[in-house]
Amino acid sequence: MAYTLTILGCHSATPRLGANPTAQHLVMRERHFLIDCGEGTQIELKRHNIKAQRIDHILISHLHGDHFFGLLGLLSSFHLLDRGKPLHIYAPDGLRDILRTTFRHSNTWLSYPLEYHPLRFDEPELIYEDEKLSITSVPLKHSVPACGFVFREKKHPRKLNVEAVHQLQIPVYAYHRIKQGFDWVSDDGHLVSNELLTYDGAQSRSYAFCSDTAFCPAIIPAIQGVDLLYHEATFLQSDALLASKTQHSTAVEAARIAQEAEVKQLLLGHFSARYPDAQLFKEEAKNIFSQVQLARDGQVIEIK
Amino acid sequence: MAYTLTILGCHSATPRLGANPTAQHLVMRERHFLIDCGEGTQIELKRHNIKAQRIDHILISHLHGDHFFGLLGLLSSFHLLDRGKPLHIYAPDGLRDILRTTFRHSNTWLSYPLEYHPLRFDEPELIYEDEKLSITSVPLKHSVPACGFVFREKKHPRKLNVEAVHQLQIPVYAYHRIKQGFDWVSDDGHLVSNELLTYDGAQSRSYAFCSDTAFCPAIIPAIQGVDLLYHEATFLQSDALLASKTQHSTAVEAARIAQEAEVKQLLLGHFSARYPDAQLFKEEAKNIFSQVQLARDGQVIEIK
Repeated sequence: MAYTLTILGCHSATPRLGANPTAQHLVMRERHFLIDCGEGTQIELKRHNIKAQRIDHILISHLHGDHFFGLLGLLSSFHLLDRGKPLHIYAPDGLRDILRTTFRHSNTWLSYPLEYHPLRFDEPELIYEDEKLSITSVPLKHSVPACGFVFREKKHPRKLNVEAVHQLQIPVYAYHRIKQGFDWVSDDGHLVSNELLTYDGAQSRSYAFCSDTAFCPAIIPAIQGVDLLYHEATFLQSDALLASKTQHSTAVEAARIAQEAEVKQLLLGHFSARYPDAQLFKEEAKNIFSQVQLARDGQVIEIK
Repeated sequence: MAYTLTILGCHSATPRLGANPTAQHLVMRERHFLIDCGEGTQIELKRHNIKAQRIDHILISHLHGDHFFGLLGLLSSFHLLDRGKPLHIYAPDGLRDILRTTFRHSNTWLSYPLEYHPLRFDEPELIYEDEKLSITSVPLKHSVPACGFVFREKKHPRKLNVEAVHQLQIPVYAYHRIKQGFDWVSDDGHLVSNELLTYDGAQSRSYAFCSDTAFCPAIIPAIQGVDLLYHEATFLQSDALLASKTQHSTAVEAARIAQEAEVKQLLLGHFSARYPDAQLFKEEAKNIFSQVQLARDGQVIEIK
């Protein structure tokens, strides 16, 4: 049950060697998601041996270039490599216009269907759901409409108590229903409580991605208790005014959100180029929320 | 009088690690030009310590993504870095629509003026001229409207024969006109021929960029005799049918153009990802045109 987050890029817009703009690859319950897609993302996917064609869902938080200028290249490459299966894009509606205009002028007619799911920015919305997980968009507070994304696994099936089902000679066909939590009723009407036949299933895991945003306590209910929160921290506290002006967060503000939302782990990113040492972000955040780490390009995080 | 061509990327569209899409930086008579701008170009400029802000002219050959998907990021970065001076873009007219649409949705209002110069595709056109050089666009033959670009230095000023002007006690204020080729007439009406006062100036140099294109002899008059011709060679001769179908050239076809145009040097690029060894391009071309070399990312070529 892999749950792997690969940080393809975690830096703010100013281009730097070895500091990629925002992009993340998330594998959760065998589904592959790409979150944001800054310039060069397709090359970073290659660098990390991620099979890009497995990605069926791309989520774009907002239309600032450092979060989506790599998308055109990636979509074109899917086309060049003869992708046939649909690709779902969750993004501000304007992206559709940008892609259409660009592909029209480059005479590109994609080999695969592109399914648009425009985001809304007034309230959280369930944008994806299947039997294993759900994704909710969460409006952020930024200079253009922006959303975070919360990924939550659904309840895992219960684990069979193999010894007990053998001892009670329960037929194999009944295992599936038992793992779903049902009691067992034998042919002669004897009931065995599910508790005697199963253990708790694996714990459901969750991940929240919040970038770019000013300090925005309104997101707290939606991200409550997640296992991992990626929150932008573009500035240090000494530049709090600048953060407020540009609608970004400081490390301290990100830590406050993490603390109030009672998340398990905080991952900071989107660092401004003005600071030579990212460790300062961690130090400032740690005073408020201890379970904090700094994102770095190429980092792979497994949530067990 | 630097004349330096830096190959930032010379590969065809399929993304590969360490194989950048098309982009070149040309310095000619202290002017900085960017020719095409595939994804990641702004990072390649940084990698090669090229001060991107010195670029005042960007030429985009055509609107296939591997030739311009890096432009949006570069223009945004110029804005982030507070560029004020105008930027001239020579490109198919559709680019204007793409940029406008994208910047509108990302709420970006550039800090500097963008001057568009739409290309024409029916015949060669002088698209830039100043006292030191000219640029002519040359229509190519591709699946979308495409142009090559020919850069030609104007005649260099003649070099002063210092010994002669000293001996004849010619005043310093006259040197400028003498270097322009004028004779000298002294106050007493005595005429000294310019030939006695100067040597030939440096030779005028030229560069032609031709990508992407099928075999297109129509370009020969415009590129006649250039010092260096960059010509695409996407395919080997064994894939000549595919080259023709996709409106690209083979190495042999590029060599034929070089030979008929009597250029001094041929530089091949835009290699398809299907060939593991680029040396084969050189071998095939060499049978027809001996002065051939293969472009490689990061290569710096100085034409003396």
